[in-house]
Amino acid sequence: MIGIGLIGYGYWGPNLLRNFWNNPHCDVKAVADARQERLSLVGKQYPAITLTTNAKDLLHNSDVDAVVIATPVQTHYALAKEALQNGKHVLIEKPMTANSAEARELMELADSKGLTLMVDHTFLYTGAVAKIHELVDSGTIGDLAYFDSTRINLGLFQPDVNVLWDLAPHDLSILLHIEKRMPRSVNATGISHTANGIENIAFMTVNYDHDFIAHFNCSWTSPVKVRQTLIGGKQKMVVYNDLEPSEKIRVYDTGYKHNSEEEKVKIMVEYRTGDVYIPKIDTQEALYKMTLDFAAAIMEGKAPMASAELGCRVVMLLEAAQQSINANGKEIKL
Amino acid sequence: MIGIGLIGYGYWGPNLLRNFWNNPHCDVKAVADARQERLSLVGKQYPAITLTTNAKDLLHNSDVDAVVIATPVQTHYALAKEALQNGKHVLIEKPMTANSAEARELMELADSKGLTLMVDHTFLYTGAVAKIHELVDSGTIGDLAYFDSTRINLGLFQPDVNVLWDLAPHDLSILLHIEKRMPRSVNATGISHTANGIENIAFMTVNYDHDFIAHFNCSWTSPVKVRQTLIGGKQKMVVYNDLEPSEKIRVYDTGYKHNSEEEKVKIMVEYRTGDVYIPKIDTQEALYKMTLDFAAAIMEGKAPMASAELGCRVVMLLEAAQQSINANGKEIKL
Amino acid sequence: MIGIGLIGYGYWGPNLLRNFWNNPHCDVKAVADARQERLSLVGKQYPAITLTTNAKDLLHNSDVDAVVIATPVQTHYALAKEALQNGKHVLIEKPMTANSAEARELMELADSKGLTLMVDHTFLYTGAVAKIHELVDSGTIGDLAYFDSTRINLGLFQPDVNVLWDLAPHDLSILLHIEKRMPRSVNATGISHTANGIENIAFMTVNYDHDFIAHFNCSWTSPVKVRQTLIGGKQKMVVYNDLEPSEKIRVYDTGYKHNSEEEKVKIMVEYRTGDVYIPKIDTQEALYKMTLDFAAAIMEGKAPMASAELGCRVVMLLEAAQQSINANGKEIKL
Amino acid sequence: MIGIGLIGYGYWGPNLLRNFWNNPHCDVKAVADARQERLSLVGKQYPAITLTTNAKDLLHNSDVDAVVIATPVQTHYALAKEALQNGKHVLIEKPMTANSAEARELMELADSKGLTLMVDHTFLYTGAVAKIHELVDSGTIGDLAYFDSTRINLGLFQPDVNVLWDLAPHDLSILLHIEKRMPRSVNATGISHTANGIENIAFMTVNYDHDFIAHFNCSWTSPVKVRQTLIGGKQKMVVYNDLEPSEKIRVYDTGYKHNSEEEKVKIMVEYRTGDVYIPKIDTQEALYKMTLDFAAAIMEGKAPMASAELGCRVVMLLEAAQQSINANGKEIKL
Repeated sequence: MIGIGLIGYGYWGPNLLRNFWNNPHCDVKAVADARQERLSLVGKQYPAITLTTNAKDLLHNSDVDAVVIATPVQTHYALAKEALQNGKHVLIEKPMTANSAEARELMELADSKGLTLMVDHTFLYTGAVAKIHELVDSGTIGDLAYFDSTRINLGLFQPDVNVLWDLAPHDLSILLHIEKRMPRSVNATGISHTANGIENIAFMTVNYDHDFIAHFNCSWTSPVKVRQTLIGGKQKMVVYNDLEPSEKIRVYDTGYKHNSEEEKVKIMVEYRTGDVYIPKIDTQEALYKMTLDFAAAIMEGKAPMASAELGCRVVMLLEAAQQSINANGKEIKL
Repeated sequence: MIGIGLIGYGYWGPNLLRNFWNNPHCDVKAVADARQERLSLVGKQYPAITLTTNAKDLLHNSDVDAVVIATPVQTHYALAKEALQNGKHVLIEKPMTANSAEARELMELADSKGLTLMVDHTFLYTGAVAKIHELVDSGTIGDLAYFDSTRINLGLFQPDVNVLWDLAPHDLSILLHIEKRMPRSVNATGISHTANGIENIAFMTVNYDHDFIAHFNCSWTSPVKVRQTLIGGKQKMVVYNDLEPSEKIRVYDTGYKHNSEEEKVKIMVEYRTGDVYIPKIDTQEALYKMTLDFAAAIMEGKAPMASAELGCRVVMLLEAAQQSINANGKEIKL
Repeated sequence: MIGIGLIGYGYWGPNLLRNFWNNPHCDVKAVADARQERLSLVGKQYPAITLTTNAKDLLHNSDVDAVVIATPVQTHYALAKEALQNGKHVLIEKPMTANSAEARELMELADSKGLTLMVDHTFLYTGAVAKIHELVDSGTIGDLAYFDSTRINLGLFQPDVNVLWDLAPHDLSILLHIEKRMPRSVNATGISHTANGIENIAFMTVNYDHDFIAHFNCSWTSPVKVRQTLIGGKQKMVVYNDLEPSEKIRVYDTGYKHNSEEEKVKIMVEYRTGDVYIPKIDTQEALYKMTLDFAAAIMEGKAPMASAELGCRVVMLLEAAQQSINANGKEIKL
Repeated sequence: MIGIGLIGYGYWGPNLLRNFWNNPHCDVKAVADARQERLSLVGKQYPAITLTTNAKDLLHNSDVDAVVIATPVQTHYALAKEALQNGKHVLIEKPMTANSAEARELMELADSKGLTLMVDHTFLYTGAVAKIHELVDSGTIGDLAYFDSTRINLGLFQPDVNVLWDLAPHDLSILLHIEKRMPRSVNATGISHTANGIENIAFMTVNYDHDFIAHFNCSWTSPVKVRQTLIGGKQKMVVYNDLEPSEKIRVYDTGYKHNSEEEKVKIMVEYRTGDVYIPKIDTQEALYKMTLDFAAAIMEGKAPMASAELGCRVVMLLEAAQQSINANGKEIKL
């Protein structure tokens, strides 16, 4: 049994706690939160769990083998570092850290200590993303040509991070999961409608050295909620609409090809349109599967799917996007 | 009666001919097209119209008061220039010209000759755009905060212009129609999946000096057709879905406001969500209304709604977008 | 404080318990369920509540002022009768009883004892139905012309009641809530695809003496889930789509009128179509509002919105529908 | 070449004329319409066609081998009879005749003369219905369990026939095309909101001796347009949405089965849900394919797909539905 200590019982903490509680390989030993009223909620429902307002207590608790960090992003680095230094495995809420230098340092520390370091990119564990991954990996949709994601909503304005840091990690993690090659560069633009200058609308392009492009449209200021990603392959194209209750994935047997070598002068593109196919997808709770992967990574000493490497790359892309916005959309090499 | 001469009877020509034919102020006198088989089609349906394979004949035809140019964009400038030099009013298919220098030269020529020069930005004459303009102009939706357009499809790859030149003129004309202030700069990114290097997917941000941003997502390579624009105001937000058969415009009584001056440190945004309202919109054919506006502009000597100025600005933005793509997304000042 | 005793802790019981628990006028004293494992669940979460496997204990418990019956429909009558005889107020899960004679007897008993008898037609307390009721009551949509409801799904086949008894109570209660006049008769048809002869698909028409008709399409055997009701008025029409997360109600400013008296020979109907309006609706939990109404009815001695009279009428209509199906669709007078 | 004479150039006539004109096996010789202004329209576009205001002229025209009747339903019988008596093949607009006795008499007359008699149930020639037929015929969806059609709209009130005669022929023809067994009986209910007593809303159930049921919901008085049919098989279920521009057919790999023989007492139904599949369907114009089938039937002496037998059965069902409405929903045996 892996003894689990959870730091942070805010919005996401209760979900993490419930799923680790149900995980047969884990035993939740302690929860830390600076707010006494949050701890009371834990105590009522889980009387056996040790409660503390001081995260340090938990980091030094010998019952705790693995620490789950669900606090604001600015605090991730220091908490994770201390946990790793104390020999604890670590799961960090996404985004992993406030900058990529911190992320890399944590990765090196975990490596040197032989500890598991993982980032909670829950979306990777959804049935929908598993299906997309399968379609890409099996070659069914052919070489990837583009990835175009829209995640807009009337969303809570965050006081400390912009809309990309808030919303794009989901889609960036999916991108990095299905296209393993490292991007070349990032461009981003955006606008802040508030006095603090934090962007509430932003657009991000991720450029690659091969024949592929990714784009992200994020907004806290849309009257309609859209969570849609188009994933174009040379053979087929996928539309992933996360708001559909069950039909989240549509596979279009749609493609195009060039006719001949003469195309360089005069392009003649031929389209093919065919059936549409809506695969049934697994509806098991993604967060639960994430906790299973964390436990398996610890027990078997292997990298989890939502690896620190992937989490670090997400931070690198967000960091580059922020730099690009600050430099009026200039391309930022990675 | 205004004598009309039409140059180019390809995809759009028949629609222009039919609508000018029905326009009570116009009399279509001549049609020119280099392809004899296209002229035969005109001859069968409109035996009274003079046909020629040589556009010059038409430009020198004294029955022709106004020339309508519906040929590939590269030919617009030379044809329009000769028409204006011969004292003809001119309507040009969008985009106006292949570059903004040409567009400006034509404008100056038309001005100096006292002739009407107009660009066929048909979308401005749709009931939907008229309604959006009314909502903006009346102050109903409040100060504009953003404009976010997606126009993607499995589209015909053009051999000479990229996807922005093909698809964005519609949305750029709508933007310039409702937000009269000149943008500051443009950023764009994109990718070409064909050997000729012409982008089939592109993303474009239009930046302003005031608190407003516009973004355009254009693709010929999407398995699904989307033609949607979000127009956010400080009071209300509009979703314009051009694929809806009748409910094209949805007005959301949705907004947000900041609570206090202290926001600069800690932003507290309060949302307001309310009713949604789908106004009935005029369904009269937009192209016909465009021909009426052209005739009125000629007869009354006033600028038409789809003015040369607006058409020229569309070309400036497209030109800047191409420059930005070529410079890896760099901001191009206008 | 009203002492509440709940009988039946199956599918709906936990929702009832949670909402009565939160109701400031109520104090849940006891829960009865024949299954010990269900009672354990209550005990874990609500240690203060008295538990019993014998409903009789609860009916004779002097702490209990009001009994909530959430058991299979065949048991409603006997339990409610004994509760009323013991001087308890009663709330019964819908449908009220297995036949209308039982329902009427319970109503008379409650009346004679001066006790509140109510049926949990939760839908009446939703924001959507409240809005529809307001639109009808205020005369906004004009005289009602028709009510057409479709409630189909891949639903759990019930072993004891047909699909109308399972699904139609929701829509029948809404119908009776907005159109107070008593229907004249019922026709129904249906089919059973199982060996027990219980209909899994059924269609029901409710006829009125005035210019109005209602129709219900219910199925447990549809691959798609539909929960939609059209409510046509002489001035406007409403589409109520309960599957829409927030835009459940659409009001169409659509109507038609006859031109003249000569219509009897040659009808000339003129249509009017106008704006569509999607009112914001209250999203407070309906079940909680139902418990508030129950408490208010007891405390103030007034009839609740989901009155026994309405619940009894629902049963009468279901009973008539079953008779009609059994008689091959024959009209059954009420 | 088959010489075609068309009677009636109203709403549908121009479509018939255009398609017969393009049919390589047919030569349209004459058009009759009592209204001179309608004939002028024909003359302008098709100067070679003989025009007459008297249908008799056409029926006796020796150039005419086949007569196409596109007049109001009350006139179908007399015109078709005279045409057949004069040795002409006949195509009749749907519904075939005003009653089934007339339909049967025409069938017998055509048989005795060895002439082709066909009804223009165009829907049978659509790609969507062809695909449904293929799915049923190949056994892909398994034994049919139900057919549930909704065809509602803000429709033109007809002065002479009710909404079932106007809208249901489409869906009834599809039903009879895919389920060849004859129904047992019909129930129908409806309401008239106009003084002439003609139903503008009606509901119809078609009962079978085997384990299958069909239902039809037709309205001229709906603010929303719906044209949807659910076709449930024991193996799969089809949703046919005719308003979808391209994705008209969705095949759900959805079913249910009973677990055991003990079901008669306690039904345990197990569901299976799986992928959804949207087949690409043929988009060739259905009306053109109908004219090809008419020509082939004449040339090869075989029954067309939209046979007189099928057309007659549609009339029988409509007739029975009217009788049932008049008898307050009573079952009418066929």
